[in-house]
Amino acid sequence: MGSSAIRELLKVTEQTDIISFAGGFPAAEYFPVERFREASDYVLKNYSSRALQYGTTEGFQPLREYMVNKMAKLGVKRSVENVLITSGSQQSLDLVGRIFINKGDRIITERPTFIGSMQSWRAYQAEFITLPVDEEGMNTEALDETIKLKPKFMYILPNYQNPAGVTLSMDRRQTIVKLARQYGIPIVEDDPYWELRYEGEHLPSLLSLDEEMGRVRFSGESARDLDHGKVIYLGTFSKTLAPGLRLGWIMAPAELIRDCALAKQGMDLHTSMFVQMVAYQVVKDGFLEEHIAQVREVYRERRDIMLNAMSREFPSVVKWTRPQGGLFLWVTLPEMVNSLGILRKAIESKVAFVPGSAFYPDGGGDNEFRLNYSNAKPEQIEQGIKRLGKVLASELETAALNI
Amino acid sequence: MGSSAIRELLKVTEQTDIISFAGGFPAAEYFPVERFREASDYVLKNYSSRALQYGTTEGFQPLREYMVNKMAKLGVKRSVENVLITSGSQQSLDLVGRIFINKGDRIITERPTFIGSMQSWRAYQAEFITLPVDEEGMNTEALDETIKLKPKFMYILPNYQNPAGVTLSMDRRQTIVKLARQYGIPIVEDDPYWELRYEGEHLPSLLSLDEEMGRVRFSGESARDLDHGKVIYLGTFSKTLAPGLRLGWIMAPAELIRDCALAKQGMDLHTSMFVQMVAYQVVKDGFLEEHIAQVREVYRERRDIMLNAMSREFPSVVKWTRPQGGLFLWVTLPEMVNSLGILRKAIESKVAFVPGSAFYPDGGGDNEFRLNYSNAKPEQIEQGIKRLGKVLASELETAALNI
Repeated sequence: MGSSAIRELLKVTEQTDIISFAGGFPAAEYFPVERFREASDYVLKNYSSRALQYGTTEGFQPLREYMVNKMAKLGVKRSVENVLITSGSQQSLDLVGRIFINKGDRIITERPTFIGSMQSWRAYQAEFITLPVDEEGMNTEALDETIKLKPKFMYILPNYQNPAGVTLSMDRRQTIVKLARQYGIPIVEDDPYWELRYEGEHLPSLLSLDEEMGRVRFSGESARDLDHGKVIYLGTFSKTLAPGLRLGWIMAPAELIRDCALAKQGMDLHTSMFVQMVAYQVVKDGFLEEHIAQVREVYRERRDIMLNAMSREFPSVVKWTRPQGGLFLWVTLPEMVNSLGILRKAIESKVAFVPGSAFYPDGGGDNEFRLNYSNAKPEQIEQGIKRLGKVLASELETAALNI
Repeated sequence: MGSSAIRELLKVTEQTDIISFAGGFPAAEYFPVERFREASDYVLKNYSSRALQYGTTEGFQPLREYMVNKMAKLGVKRSVENVLITSGSQQSLDLVGRIFINKGDRIITERPTFIGSMQSWRAYQAEFITLPVDEEGMNTEALDETIKLKPKFMYILPNYQNPAGVTLSMDRRQTIVKLARQYGIPIVEDDPYWELRYEGEHLPSLLSLDEEMGRVRFSGESARDLDHGKVIYLGTFSKTLAPGLRLGWIMAPAELIRDCALAKQGMDLHTSMFVQMVAYQVVKDGFLEEHIAQVREVYRERRDIMLNAMSREFPSVVKWTRPQGGLFLWVTLPEMVNSLGILRKAIESKVAFVPGSAFYPDGGGDNEFRLNYSNAKPEQIEQGIKRLGKVLASELETAALNI
């Protein structure tokens, strides 16, 4: 069943009496609306018509500088020429597709992986080679062999991966970056959630590991050489601030940023100047970090409520991941059970999720599904998991009887 | 010389002492900044977090309805399912490319034509078949023969075409629509400027002509059948309100809008909700029409000043179009003269334009160039045309001596 058919099925979740764990929406009740109002006011008073005129494709300069400074705090030393502002991470993925993928080109992805990337890259007729994820993120055992198939790039979501909620271990991060450098294969690192960590320590991005290795390898050479790393890092404001802005960014070697800018000219000329200026005005002076600290607590609580409720309400044969951050967790049912069938029953019981098969580029995931916990209030999570637990118990019983 | 090289050459126009007729910028000093400030304030107070959350790919419903009503006043009877909001007309072109064009597909365009469309469609490896424009727009004499080459679509800018400033005559509009219907070839009608008419009567869009013919042909059949027209109409707020929003729309058969929405999901999910809501709040209740009436007067004056100055300052062998509206006019030099060479001299004299070759998909236009009159103040236009006149006189003299 294709993901568009699943999308059709999930349309009912727009009904208000359905508790939906299907989306990937952040909690709108915590959006800093008043700060946005002040920022819009400031931008139109101070930048005036500049906010409404055409702008450069690369993006609003202060916002690009903001990204450079933010990444510098993580040890990534780049300059504005390494940053392109995009109309959301989905556009970043589309740009990557346009620049790298020709019909039949192979790309390595995790299995399961983000639906949006598949949607972008199928348009360019990519072929997906997938490596399974486990509790430590993408399993790299077969990576050495797989990379010899000459993929155009590897696509990795290192932190609290969408959909599986797992985090790539430090060992595997190093393995991936080393192999990418050895074989000259770019890494597309999609990292929308890293600041939403609820426990444990932040692990260095593939971008920063690549930069570190660059320093060792090229010691004595100029900073310019460092720029020729192989990591294309995708960031976004959608999960930490507000997705309705449609604002993301790419950090990559300057040459690639120039290619991206040229491609973006043909795609939408540039991202709304008004939106970029307002967003900059909102995030500056440490506001974003303060705001994230708040929503982190909210999501941590929701994750815990969902995990506790699942322990209580789900049959014992059902397994799930325990995400260290982000918005999603991943449920695995016994192999005989199909999550799409369960979804139909769940919708009858007024609760919804996304079946696992939607996240598999090359088939599979039929007995799995994704749950989102950021967009339902605590009491809805309790109630929804209770409903889902009943559906699962009943369906597993039926399935067992049919064996 | 490729258009990217021309772009490189034109980078100097960012210097403030250059009078540039090269861009396509509207006059920023007339943007309704205060109305935008009130609108942003209203949106964040009243829609609150909805303005910052994910939205539907098809667009903000009231804005789609606004488009339906606006087009209804021109006799085009469609519904919201015929409208998709895009991140500017450039994205509309990119969507058209993604849906229609496979490698080597032919499309018919005017010669010269809009640079942005070439930039989008070259990414999909389109082949351009071109028909020349004259004072009455695209010359349709050879259209019957050309259309037999089975193009994927025809691309037409009917009103004050960018770059040539010419307007498609009523006869030719009818010919184009008839042939498109006869051979089943879609028309992509790009119409950013129609409300900026400075003289003469509004001519019906290809979309409305197609709809009229539909009514005759399908009389007695349901309204549904009318929906299967062949015109994909592209509109934008960039020239009438503010380009920095990046806001456009497509009006097309409902089936095609669904295809576009699916493609757009993979491109940027949706256009910023905040921007859509603010724009709707700005344009509603007749404000847009009032505002356009004002800028129309401004641009009419600038066009007249430029035309008068050209008559005074340009050598008599130089010819140009007299646009009935829009932002551009088109200059033709004697055939022996190359406008790119002239541009280099012009830049030395602190004035700039875009050489004609940039607008030719398949070569030509070497002795032509485009002038924009919307983004320079009256005294700058006088001064710039004087400078350009001197350069032209000197260059034409040199060219004549070299024969």
